[in-house]
Amino acid sequence: MKALCWDGERLSLIDRDDPHAGADEAVVRVSLAGICNTDLEIARGYMGFRGTPGHEVVGTVIAGPSQWIGARVVAEINFACGSCDWCRRDLGRHCPQRRVMGILGADGGFAEYVAVPVANLHRVPESIPDRCAVFAEPLAAAYEMLEQVAIGPGVTCTVLGDGKLGLLCAQVAAAAGAEVIAVGKHADKLRLLQARGIRTVELGEWDAAPADVVVEATGSARGLGAAIAATRPRGTIVLKSTVADRLSLDLAPLVINEISVVGSRCGRFAPALQALEADAIDVTSLIADTLPLQRGVEAFERAAQPGMLKVLLEIS
Amino acid sequence: MKALCWDGERLSLIDRDDPHAGADEAVVRVSLAGICNTDLEIARGYMGFRGTPGHEVVGTVIAGPSQWIGARVVAEINFACGSCDWCRRDLGRHCPQRRVMGILGADGGFAEYVAVPVANLHRVPESIPDRCAVFAEPLAAAYEMLEQVAIGPGVTCTVLGDGKLGLLCAQVAAAAGAEVIAVGKHADKLRLLQARGIRTVELGEWDAAPADVVVEATGSARGLGAAIAATRPRGTIVLKSTVADRLSLDLAPLVINEISVVGSRCGRFAPALQALEADAIDVTSLIADTLPLQRGVEAFERAAQPGMLKVLLEIS
Repeated sequence: MKALCWDGERLSLIDRDDPHAGADEAVVRVSLAGICNTDLEIARGYMGFRGTPGHEVVGTVIAGPSQWIGARVVAEINFACGSCDWCRRDLGRHCPQRRVMGILGADGGFAEYVAVPVANLHRVPESIPDRCAVFAEPLAAAYEMLEQVAIGPGVTCTVLGDGKLGLLCAQVAAAAGAEVIAVGKHADKLRLLQARGIRTVELGEWDAAPADVVVEATGSARGLGAAIAATRPRGTIVLKSTVADRLSLDLAPLVINEISVVGSRCGRFAPALQALEADAIDVTSLIADTLPLQRGVEAFERAAQPGMLKVLLEIS
Repeated sequence: MKALCWDGERLSLIDRDDPHAGADEAVVRVSLAGICNTDLEIARGYMGFRGTPGHEVVGTVIAGPSQWIGARVVAEINFACGSCDWCRRDLGRHCPQRRVMGILGADGGFAEYVAVPVANLHRVPESIPDRCAVFAEPLAAAYEMLEQVAIGPGVTCTVLGDGKLGLLCAQVAAAAGAEVIAVGKHADKLRLLQARGIRTVELGEWDAAPADVVVEATGSARGLGAAIAATRPRGTIVLKSTVADRLSLDLAPLVINEISVVGSRCGRFAPALQALEADAIDVTSLIADTLPLQRGVEAFERAAQPGMLKVLLEIS
């Protein structure tokens, strides 16, 4: 099969053996896959990953248990052991033995086929087109914050960052009933939120009025300091940015104002699929470009351009 | 009256006017006062404070409402407006208008007399001697973490730092039923905890096994990094250290492991006084020295020696 592959030095389109369905696994023929910032980091050496990246995937099962053959699916990305304490608590995404699709110890979906544990599959409701279903993983990451922090009616929520994750988080917080203000640098991106009735402000005009919850999704090392300054005493910061740089920070205001910082990563797919089915979140406006797998290397370059929204790979 | 005074350049014992009881205030004749790390920071310029420091105080009311005259008291240190949203929620310690005794806009207790709002007074039960009651404020700060984080039976709790606050936090967590291990650099201090049946380990021997809750009370800029490494996924760090330095930190593990960091500062006095009355917490072992107010400047120097436990000022 054709697959993008990162060998530690170079990303290239190569011929690889088709994957086989191991025990409790299925093989998915990938239809559409999304390039995420983590993929761009991987192609800079993040996690020391070698192989085929890609963890935002929709496709059709072509091998595995008979009841799954032909199903259109998305797949949760943490391949967990299924038997440890974490897995028993339905938190396989923290299983210490986990592999992570296209990130850690498992090939991902920038390829014609990908093997995933059957336990990770979710059928995609018919009403959700591929171009929406491919957002299940990043949207699940946005919904994760609702599992960790009280975000709902009566809660003021500032979302910092108008990148892909920030735009999803702002919509998720607003859909949950919070009073949201989204802060970003790009008028065109903020307009996507305005179209959904969400209040926005450009960074230069922002007064940083203290909010109950601040979602830090800037992807920048300076974001957390700005978030601390914009959180009320006893308020909560949801930390979504994974920044490779070390950051220099004055933490005294965190203690003085008794602020909580909650790291937030992957989420369960179910709430994301429900939201897509209900058309509660606009994801298609986030699509900047769609390229065929053959142009995968070019697609990575486009995705890496500053301010670029979602670049998709059309695979089959 | 005699009072220690920080003029922005020098700490000295001076003669000042006696304080008067304003509306809703009482004047306390100070018996005993404790020197805290914050006081040492103030005498290095922290908060830009000018005046008499001192916020760990026990004494006797000599002026104010008649029902308080003669009462032996301790006083909460945040002088709040009493009418804002924070105050109405019993969180006057976050009142944006607050003055803080000996720290911000109000003289403190390293003096013969100090004026405090009546609302801040707590009667000291007869069974609690002055040398224990003077710990009400730092002990309340240790109890504060129980208001913010679930620390109790079935919870593993690592306390980093064997300074004054670390020793109190370890005892509070253990008294709450958590399975505590205290990590420190000083065998003699750790022995104080061992005497209370608390497991301890010296930093060099510590294996950093992941705990549910890690209390960061090292007072060092490096403490938070160590705490992150010692917290289980989805676990919680209670951040007690206020470090003047900016710190350099890799926050990615916080996001990947979805760890929460909870800033924690002052607490309510009631749980601390209850614990002292029940003799649930050993505070007297923390007393390193007691000097008269006349030797207050020398007492500050002693308190600033590395590894020094509590230095008290005997005032009347």
